[in-house]
Amino acid sequence: MVKYPIKRKPHEKITNYANLGMTLESDIEQTNQYYLDHNIAVIHKKPTPIQVVNVSYPARNKAKIVEAYYKTPSTTDFNGIYKGKYIDFDAKETNSKTSMPLKNVHPHQIEHLRNVESQGGIAFLIVHFKQYNEYFLLPFDILSTFWDSQHEKTGRKSIPYLTFKKSAYIIPFGFQPRLDYLSIIKQHFLDK
Amino acid sequence: MVKYPIKRKPHEKITNYANLGMTLESDIEQTNQYYLDHNIAVIHKKPTPIQVVNVSYPARNKAKIVEAYYKTPSTTDFNGIYKGKYIDFDAKETNSKTSMPLKNVHPHQIEHLRNVESQGGIAFLIVHFKQYNEYFLLPFDILSTFWDSQHEKTGRKSIPYLTFKKSAYIIPFGFQPRLDYLSIIKQHFLDK
Repeated sequence: MVKYPIKRKPHEKITNYANLGMTLESDIEQTNQYYLDHNIAVIHKKPTPIQVVNVSYPARNKAKIVEAYYKTPSTTDFNGIYKGKYIDFDAKETNSKTSMPLKNVHPHQIEHLRNVESQGGIAFLIVHFKQYNEYFLLPFDILSTFWDSQHEKTGRKSIPYLTFKKSAYIIPFGFQPRLDYLSIIKQHFLDK
Repeated sequence: MVKYPIKRKPHEKITNYANLGMTLESDIEQTNQYYLDHNIAVIHKKPTPIQVVNVSYPARNKAKIVEAYYKTPSTTDFNGIYKGKYIDFDAKETNSKTSMPLKNVHPHQIEHLRNVESQGGIAFLIVHFKQYNEYFLLPFDILSTFWDSQHEKTGRKSIPYLTFKKSAYIIPFGFQPRLDYLSIIKQHFLDK
């Protein structure tokens, strides 16, 4: 990649965040590439939504965005098609040993996944428990049950790890593909 | 929206391109919002892919991207689900009165739409002939026929307007929804 020099004001902290927190995401993207290369499925990550405010055209070079801000995504990160079925999911990581906090999921993502299900799509989360290095496919119906009850008296603000062990599906981590989540979909969600 | 002041170097031309060339796109986005609000379909535009090079954190404010570049999209702009079917398309505009140049379509978009069709999805273009203010839904099979033959002796580098009139489907332009392309899908692509 070409490096672009930039003048920094001394009081500004400038960091390249391109490779931080990207492990789960890149494992999924490599898996999707494998699916694509083997004509198994067409699933892509959506680009991160960015609000562009100012673009500069320095001396015949290509457009350079000089001011922009990250926007909150209005949907999930991943979608596509597998065996004629619409697939839609997001990826979450947690450091907790006991549960996945519901605050990791945005309300608009719940709404989006709910809409997807009502149209006949397959909606879920891929959740990485980093302390155990375990990956789960959490079907949307389990997520929505916990989500809807979180403000009730007996509700909780997280989904217990034990619920994942009992009711979600563990995704095998391998070499090719890295995270074969479609094997879970094939086994448990199709032809039912 | 909050305005962010920016120091400009006098030799840099800085332009806000946020609203240029967005008419067809915003007509489709308004249509998709109508579909979503009426539980007809869940179809979204993907964000424009941007390569972020440098991010600054000026004094407790939110992250400010200070250097970034537009990337070539690897897929189409729009996808989603309608009546259980995966939908995937791109939107194109042309000023020509006689044809849509094939150079308006990127090779990777053709490849992507082909992959979508092979997985059982519904793939097409929405094409706006600006001189006539006519909108067409062009099924992928017609597009791919012209695409594949463009390098043959008898091949041409564009799809004639007359082919659109004969073989594509005109999309009615209205108030709500603006461009009811799913009515075409319902009539011609489902339950066949």
